[in-house]
Amino acid sequence: MRFLHTADWHIGKKLHGYDLLEDQAHIIKQILTIAKTEKVDAIVIAGDLYDRSIPSEEGVRLLNQTIAEINLTAGIPLLAISGNHDSATRLATGAPWFAQSNFHLHTRLDQAFEPIVMGNTAFFLLPYFEPVDARIHFEDSSIRSIHDAMPIVIEKIKKQFDPKYKQVLVSHFFVSGSSRTDSETKVEVGGLDGINGVLLEDFTYVALGHLHNKNALNLPNARYSGSPLKYSLSEKEQKKGVWLVETESQLNLKFIELEPLREMQELQGTFEYFLTPDTYQQLNRENYFSFLLEDRSIIPNMMNQLRKVYPKVLQVGRLNGRENSQQSAIKKLKEKTPIELTEEFFTSIVQVAPTERQKKWIEQTIHQLVKNGGESDAS
Amino acid sequence: MRFLHTADWHIGKKLHGYDLLEDQAHIIKQILTIAKTEKVDAIVIAGDLYDRSIPSEEGVRLLNQTIAEINLTAGIPLLAISGNHDSATRLATGAPWFAQSNFHLHTRLDQAFEPIVMGNTAFFLLPYFEPVDARIHFEDSSIRSIHDAMPIVIEKIKKQFDPKYKQVLVSHFFVSGSSRTDSETKVEVGGLDGINGVLLEDFTYVALGHLHNKNALNLPNARYSGSPLKYSLSEKEQKKGVWLVETESQLNLKFIELEPLREMQELQGTFEYFLTPDTYQQLNRENYFSFLLEDRSIIPNMMNQLRKVYPKVLQVGRLNGRENSQQSAIKKLKEKTPIELTEEFFTSIVQVAPTERQKKWIEQTIHQLVKNGGESDAS
Repeated sequence: MRFLHTADWHIGKKLHGYDLLEDQAHIIKQILTIAKTEKVDAIVIAGDLYDRSIPSEEGVRLLNQTIAEINLTAGIPLLAISGNHDSATRLATGAPWFAQSNFHLHTRLDQAFEPIVMGNTAFFLLPYFEPVDARIHFEDSSIRSIHDAMPIVIEKIKKQFDPKYKQVLVSHFFVSGSSRTDSETKVEVGGLDGINGVLLEDFTYVALGHLHNKNALNLPNARYSGSPLKYSLSEKEQKKGVWLVETESQLNLKFIELEPLREMQELQGTFEYFLTPDTYQQLNRENYFSFLLEDRSIIPNMMNQLRKVYPKVLQVGRLNGRENSQQSAIKKLKEKTPIELTEEFFTSIVQVAPTERQKKWIEQTIHQLVKNGGESDAS
Repeated sequence: MRFLHTADWHIGKKLHGYDLLEDQAHIIKQILTIAKTEKVDAIVIAGDLYDRSIPSEEGVRLLNQTIAEINLTAGIPLLAISGNHDSATRLATGAPWFAQSNFHLHTRLDQAFEPIVMGNTAFFLLPYFEPVDARIHFEDSSIRSIHDAMPIVIEKIKKQFDPKYKQVLVSHFFVSGSSRTDSETKVEVGGLDGINGVLLEDFTYVALGHLHNKNALNLPNARYSGSPLKYSLSEKEQKKGVWLVETESQLNLKFIELEPLREMQELQGTFEYFLTPDTYQQLNRENYFSFLLEDRSIIPNMMNQLRKVYPKVLQVGRLNGRENSQQSAIKKLKEKTPIELTEEFFTSIVQVAPTERQKKWIEQTIHQLVKNGGESDAS
């Protein structure tokens, strides 16, 4: 069995207000090209196909076209799960028909226990789920968190192991021991308290989604694919791509890089320098830019002037910015997670820190808000 | 060819705030039972599967389950189009896969010109479309309305006629000459200026959706199926059901009535009478009720008292209500369509009535709002 492992497409996501649909269409086309070139037997998508539970019509159109092209036109089998950003119910639309053409899309916990066998490999497609789903499935009211649920879920999956096959798990969670980079400090917003890596040992391979950095985890048999595009400035140094996975005699992993339509660049210099034709004529002005200005003076209409030359400016910072106390307070605030902010607010009002139970409520509520709500940097 | 013709399911619709999902699940199950009993070759759904462009998760779940049960479990072919309440793009999710199991769901104008042939019959599935879709399809900027577009659309469909087959059109528009009842006075909100009935003459049968009354149109070869449930108090006297259509030697039409889970009843009497056990024990209190009270006195906490006995009270009116001028003004206002109200508001502000062009803008805007927005009585 030879397949591509990708995840976290986040179709419909906006980056600092810029619509990424064109970039996303471009990058998925590339994934399809790689799949054809490498003659893979399947493509695995480990969750977060959409960026939100109610995606825009344009997002729906793009994903519908894309998966039809992969599965129906190119005839490539697809194995996919819903992630924490997807609405499992909405994403499931069409799934019973998809299965007829080897497009297996699992959105419910109970589906994880029916392996999809392809060639020499059994795929267990474990979608993102909430603790309540596990409580109901196992009729066990003591399950209060993913951490509680996961050992029981994995144990039940292992009971389906048939030694004839290699065993691949596809899932969308935080695995303890994964390195969270800048962009993922807010991952806890997802309320994903994680899988213990030890639970994954008996799988031939674990194809993970959720974290956007392919290097977030380094177990011999488990990887995050990372997102196919840079979805935050903090991801600007990351290599984006897909894993080519082989489960023949032994596990073979190869990372294939993707070429985005527009790169993300952080540049340092003076305002004047950036507006000089000699500078910008050597740059691909269609890229996404973050500028670090060396100027100290006030520049009127700065953003508009920059955007006339560089249409997609994500951010402008000051190298020598004499931050006043207000600015530095704002900066500190921005570094905090929504959960930290809520807890601090609670403490300042009630004059007592929240209890563990109250913390859990805060976490669950914010998690739910992020899931239903607007843009956020949570993975 | 022998098929059921239904339309206007409006899955997810609420009636005066009451969730209808249970009633809808019940009535669709009945349609499936009839389809099996009558051994039909297909079920035709002429648009408005959903009540709004972004249906609730519960609505999505119900429709997904329902169509899977009809098409995959029972193996009954389905022919469906999107209506003005559906988002064509969202509804199209899965459609290319559906077609593999004889579930043909057309959501784009261009799909109307590729007939689906089943048995002796060619089905032309013409979804609801906007004038702009026709302008683009025919590359004709003179098309400003459905009225302009329809002759060209029908002409192009007729070019696909193969005399070997009976020709059935499935569509979702207002056909001129249809009788609009109380509940459909607001139909113009849909901006549907209609098809001339003469255009339909060459079809063996035209299966229409949009108007909720099966008797709205009486052409020998064209029918509205009406909605399967009463979706407004003004529909309380209507018989709801599906058409059983045969296109063998000659066209054969039979209306089969449906039994709702809860009836809609308008009752007249005193407040005391309705709260007397002798009265309500003879009624099915689970029904939807509209009460016309004969009382003249003020009744404190009236609605709550009634709802303790009758959980689903849609409306309470007064037979002898001495309407004060404010009440009668409100009543008059409520009888007006959103378009009329907007035009009157315009006139009162600008002191001049809106021009024809402005009227069109008002109509388009309100139409768009209703399509995207909340509850409305528009069909």
